Amino acid sequence: MRIGAVLWSLAATPRFCVVRTTARLVPPHCLIPRKGCNLASKLRHTDFITAASISSMTSTFSPEKARVPPSIPASTPPITKALFKIGLCQLKVTEDKQRNILHARTAIEEAAEKGAKLVVLPEIWNSPYSNDSFPVYAEDIEAGFDASPSTAMLSDIAGLLNITIVGGSIPERSGDKLYNTCCVFGPDGKLKAKHRKIHLFDIDIPGKITFKESKTLTAGETPTTVDTDVGRIGIGICYDIRFQELAMLYAARGAHLICYPGAFNMTTGPLHWELLQRARAVDNQLYVATCSPARDAGAGYVAWGHSTLIGPFGEVVATTEHDEAIIIAEIDYSQIELRRTNLPLEKQRRGDLYQLVDVQRLNS
Amino acid sequence: MRIGAVLWSLAATPRFCVVRTTARLVPPHCLIPRKGCNLASKLRHTDFITAASISSMTSTFSPEKARVPPSIPASTPPITKALFKIGLCQLKVTEDKQRNILHARTAIEEAAEKGAKLVVLPEIWNSPYSNDSFPVYAEDIEAGFDASPSTAMLSDIAGLLNITIVGGSIPERSGDKLYNTCCVFGPDGKLKAKHRKIHLFDIDIPGKITFKESKTLTAGETPTTVDTDVGRIGIGICYDIRFQELAMLYAARGAHLICYPGAFNMTTGPLHWELLQRARAVDNQLYVATCSPARDAGAGYVAWGHSTLIGPFGEVVATTEHDEAIIIAEIDYSQIELRRTNLPLEKQRRGDLYQLVDVQRLNS
Repeated sequence: MRIGAVLWSLAATPRFCVVRTTARLVPPHCLIPRKGCNLASKLRHTDFITAASISSMTSTFSPEKARVPPSIPASTPPITKALFKIGLCQLKVTEDKQRNILHARTAIEEAAEKGAKLVVLPEIWNSPYSNDSFPVYAEDIEAGFDASPSTAMLSDIAGLLNITIVGGSIPERSGDKLYNTCCVFGPDGKLKAKHRKIHLFDIDIPGKITFKESKTLTAGETPTTVDTDVGRIGIGICYDIRFQELAMLYAARGAHLICYPGAFNMTTGPLHWELLQRARAVDNQLYVATCSPARDAGAGYVAWGHSTLIGPFGEVVATTEHDEAIIIAEIDYSQIELRRTNLPLEKQRRGDLYQLVDVQRLNS
Repeated sequence: MRIGAVLWSLAATPRFCVVRTTARLVPPHCLIPRKGCNLASKLRHTDFITAASISSMTSTFSPEKARVPPSIPASTPPITKALFKIGLCQLKVTEDKQRNILHARTAIEEAAEKGAKLVVLPEIWNSPYSNDSFPVYAEDIEAGFDASPSTAMLSDIAGLLNITIVGGSIPERSGDKLYNTCCVFGPDGKLKAKHRKIHLFDIDIPGKITFKESKTLTAGETPTTVDTDVGRIGIGICYDIRFQELAMLYAARGAHLICYPGAFNMTTGPLHWELLQRARAVDNQLYVATCSPARDAGAGYVAWGHSTLIGPFGEVVATTEHDEAIIIAEIDYSQIELRRTNLPLEKQRRGDLYQLVDVQRLNS
């Protein structure tokens, strides 16, 4: 996302801002290092300061420097959308792609019937989860809908039902590479964002679970936040959730919600699935939604299930077990502001001691 | 801690290193920014590379750049100390300081009798937890033991019992300022480190819990890691645990264990106490130990209790309820290496996308 667009959005919804202003965003032109200076001064950090952080600039603790560039405050979506329903479709996935697509379409329709304005699908919902299957089921998303029946369905149904869809993920073919890719569609049916899994699932817990996505897949190159009718959404896919930096970066980009389509397994699922979601939510004071495939005990890779919505205080808003289910739950973005007022972490961070750099935003 | 010392320690215990070497650590002398270059190149990051990260340098994902300066691998403590017992003394605290000191001494003796080589005390164990009490109970630690009976006891008993003590925290007076301070003593009775709470507990959850430590206390200026006979320990005090950056920074400094003396309350305790500990442990793949005062329902500030030891897979190794208790539990640092082999997060981070800067280590 271009910073210009982000800041335009910020300026258009200045409820969190001290002063309504057009923020300056000037990249550093001259870096003069000296003994004892900190990174922030090397970056001529004040060039990045937005109106929202002016009030805290007098502090020697420099909370505004804890994110480089400084955080973009979470904007306030239109009042009618601050409170809305999300649908998490925990779907059983089979080897029959056409069936998987029709099945997902039916589930999306059901979620929308129950009031969901945002529907989330699982990771790899059109294909078995295996390195053997990825090349077989992969679709060339950029070649158009004829080459990608899975995303064609998502586009069609999003437009028909007038909803936003975070389309789980499917194996994507692009040239000679394969990715694990999430597509986001708006109520007009248009593709709004495409996230390629950044951190590939390469783990080895002997006797429990060994998997190497990197055998077949290529990692994505870009964190993804997307402005939708239902707020600014950050996207991660499954293993991406283990990297706290990505969630921190999304929060700093002003996300209200992070969606993680994911298929944890029978080892890491009970150990870490809910823990990681709750940690990302409470540490960053935003909503986290996850969507897993339903469990198929006969599959080569057995998913944990337990799709969940977490609130910005780390609370489980809604969850389920491992069978097929459609979770319908309410999201209230005013909770974000409330929790950030209760615990003003953003103003209490120590930019004089630690700084998280969003490399692409810094360079944009 | 001086970087020189850290690297000396690294060179002395190279089990995690690819090549036994004296690491170069040269600060950046010339920063030449250009459009499209990332922060790492601005920092001439390769000047900081240690042997351990060489194997991953070929990757365009630059995992070694996700920490600036790059992470120091966790060293391997002497075999005899890789597996040892920790004692967490969840003590009831009264208004009688002399009684609190004697009571803590007795608890430390009991923990050592049960085999603990490392004993941790609660936050503010010698004084009621209140802004009224802090100035009254504060001690001038730097003025010597006559001016600080609480730390005098810790020094004495550590030497007598030949153990390491992470001495919870006490109100510290230094000039005209007050701090919430944790002292670490070695088996020779000497003060090895002093951590002043970096993030003051200023929160406001109306009708639940409102507290402003900043009314009386001043925040510390330095993250604290300390090399002890029982491993490299990072220190945080209570609210410090909410700031994930501090734990990330300690992990990057090679800590095996983070100790958080802390007194969560009846609102945030059930919501977040265990969650935050488990998150810090699993995200950073190290041990986390917390120690709370026992609950006193009649006190002005009612502590949650539930002192806990968490392992590097986010697992609860040992915990307790809210009454007085001494937890004795085993720490096995080989679990750190095991979990980092199972899930090699360190090698999978995307330094090309995000970077956490340890400002003081960068400038040292």
